Amino acid sequence: MKFLCTKSNLLKGVSIASKAVPSKTTMPILECFMINAYGNTIKITANDMEIGIETVIEGMVIENGSIAVNARLFSDIIRKLPDNEVCIQIIENNQVKITCEKARFVIGYKNIQEFSALPDVIKNQSITISQYSLKKIIGQTIFSIAENESNLMMTGECFEVNGNNLKITALDSCRISIRNISLKENYEKTKCIVPGKTLNDLTKIIEGDMDKDVEIYFSSNHIMFEFEDTKVVSRVIEGEFFKIDQMLSFDYQVKVRANKNELYDSIDRATLLINESDKKPLVMDIKDDHVGIKIKSFSGTMNEEVEILKEGKDLMIAFNPKFIKDALRAIDDEEVSLYMVNAKNPCIIKDENESYIYMILPVNFIPEV
Amino acid sequence: MKFLCTKSNLLKGVSIASKAVPSKTTMPILECFMINAYGNTIKITANDMEIGIETVIEGMVIENGSIAVNARLFSDIIRKLPDNEVCIQIIENNQVKITCEKARFVIGYKNIQEFSALPDVIKNQSITISQYSLKKIIGQTIFSIAENESNLMMTGECFEVNGNNLKITALDSCRISIRNISLKENYEKTKCIVPGKTLNDLTKIIEGDMDKDVEIYFSSNHIMFEFEDTKVVSRVIEGEFFKIDQMLSFDYQVKVRANKNELYDSIDRATLLINESDKKPLVMDIKDDHVGIKIKSFSGTMNEEVEILKEGKDLMIAFNPKFIKDALRAIDDEEVSLYMVNAKNPCIIKDENESYIYMILPVNFIPEV
Repeated sequence: MKFLCTKSNLLKGVSIASKAVPSKTTMPILECFMINAYGNTIKITANDMEIGIETVIEGMVIENGSIAVNARLFSDIIRKLPDNEVCIQIIENNQVKITCEKARFVIGYKNIQEFSALPDVIKNQSITISQYSLKKIIGQTIFSIAENESNLMMTGECFEVNGNNLKITALDSCRISIRNISLKENYEKTKCIVPGKTLNDLTKIIEGDMDKDVEIYFSSNHIMFEFEDTKVVSRVIEGEFFKIDQMLSFDYQVKVRANKNELYDSIDRATLLINESDKKPLVMDIKDDHVGIKIKSFSGTMNEEVEILKEGKDLMIAFNPKFIKDALRAIDDEEVSLYMVNAKNPCIIKDENESYIYMILPVNFIPEV
Repeated sequence: MKFLCTKSNLLKGVSIASKAVPSKTTMPILECFMINAYGNTIKITANDMEIGIETVIEGMVIENGSIAVNARLFSDIIRKLPDNEVCIQIIENNQVKITCEKARFVIGYKNIQEFSALPDVIKNQSITISQYSLKKIIGQTIFSIAENESNLMMTGECFEVNGNNLKITALDSCRISIRNISLKENYEKTKCIVPGKTLNDLTKIIEGDMDKDVEIYFSSNHIMFEFEDTKVVSRVIEGEFFKIDQMLSFDYQVKVRANKNELYDSIDRATLLINESDKKPLVMDIKDDHVGIKIKSFSGTMNEEVEILKEGKDLMIAFNPKFIKDALRAIDDEEVSLYMVNAKNPCIIKDENESYIYMILPVNFIPEV
């Protein structure tokens, strides 16, 4: 194997593929990139068995061949090379030589037989979405997946295509986050649960341009995201997702409309008096034209009033402040509406056309606060 | 106590003073700021018994008084307040109320009797230096102080005033770093050893403006840096500093002149093949018009030639690459000169007028590399 390419192309490829290199593993081959140089194509692949990434880089192949090299070491070397043309070439004794200007590195490589190729995904069902939209709606929901794996289904997000609508749902035991987005075309109905780790890695790789698209391919066991010169293949989480519609009720007795930033900042201030481990509730005391934000902890007390427009009765309700903050942070609107029934039922934050729906369960509190 | 001041003034003062708040301590009072409001002056003080910082902030005192408050909690609260006027006021039950717009915090305070005031430094011997120069020369030497405290003297830097020259020296068991800088006036001879921690904290506080000065006061047990509205007082390390002049010899048999960035980049690339714990030497193979940079480790080998101008004989010499990199990084010149005798004697990197002198001991190596 021998090929030439620029440092910047190589570095871009290496950075993308390294997202599928596990930081800890007992299998040394998973710590490797597979590099294939055949005909006109130089391809870097990494595969941690859950997620696999393959990216093609521009360059000139002089001699066909493939190797597997330690991903971390190879990335470090490429990163530190001068900004010029790089030559990568197999030499004797299972070694590969990396040359750039006057710098010469020689490192060992492994045979690619051990390397697990990416699964083949049959390309018969797909949707197209802009990089911008995909990156955005993942970021606006992924915070509410569950981190521990006691319920595997909660560690992923449900992707659901229906006509020209893509609905993404994430939930843990205390909240639900939903985003709906319109696609440019109508597609066949389909649904799958994508692991949170895959989506996190994906948002780090896709640049998020408005005018660049991502193709998403759905198959029974895998989902594949294809964009520019890169493919990201991930296994999906098996099973039937939660029946979300049965959990959401849009009846309400109190509607509060507030400036999003004012409400967020006030809650943010209040939470500095507590540690997350404290589990102290944030009390919202909803009166005629304002909501009192109240917190009391070992360190002290905080008290603030935020102006609101209210429909319905007065209400005192308490939340885990982190959940309210997460939801408000994910909303771009200047004004938000909160819908509540009473202190025991969930609060729903949504816009008129339900492009977003955030449901948060309240917590118990002692009303004298 | 009651006073008013803007959030930004308060935040600035709090950020400066917090550098003297220890992150871990068994004495809760050390975790506090002392806040004094008397007449027209609002002062925030922190003191961890090694370094003490006092800073004056602008504001309006309505009622005289002093308190000690938990520094971390107080800083967090100030940071999160709206950008507006803040009112700080003692209320009943040893509590202090912090109000800004509609936000009201109430936290406990401690009596200032427990708080150790800063030591009085007699202001009879001082020098003036620009913030820019002081920050710069500290940064260009402090990397070579010793981190562990087996030899206390090596954990500080020696400040030495002689006529209009300030000389700063830092050393550990393998290297010496010296910077000389001209002062605008002539001063009496003086010398002291300043703890490295003090200097690190100081460089974080001084902004480094060319046209703002720092007054440095020397007393027998303390050094005080005074600038703008802030005083930093530190104990000094007692004892006689090393006789550096006896350790430095400027005789040489090989002089190498190289482009600093080329040399640095090449050594930097070579070091990615080794961990610091490896203790692998970097071999410099000095020939007529180039120096071969060579490293060999478990991961692979690296080999690069850097063009040089040479005076004297050929030489093969090896170093801990970190030490060479540290010195080169601290030099602003485009070209650097390295002076060597043989593979067993130190290498000296210095400019013509000795505004900087970096001495580095070589290490043993097996020449077949």
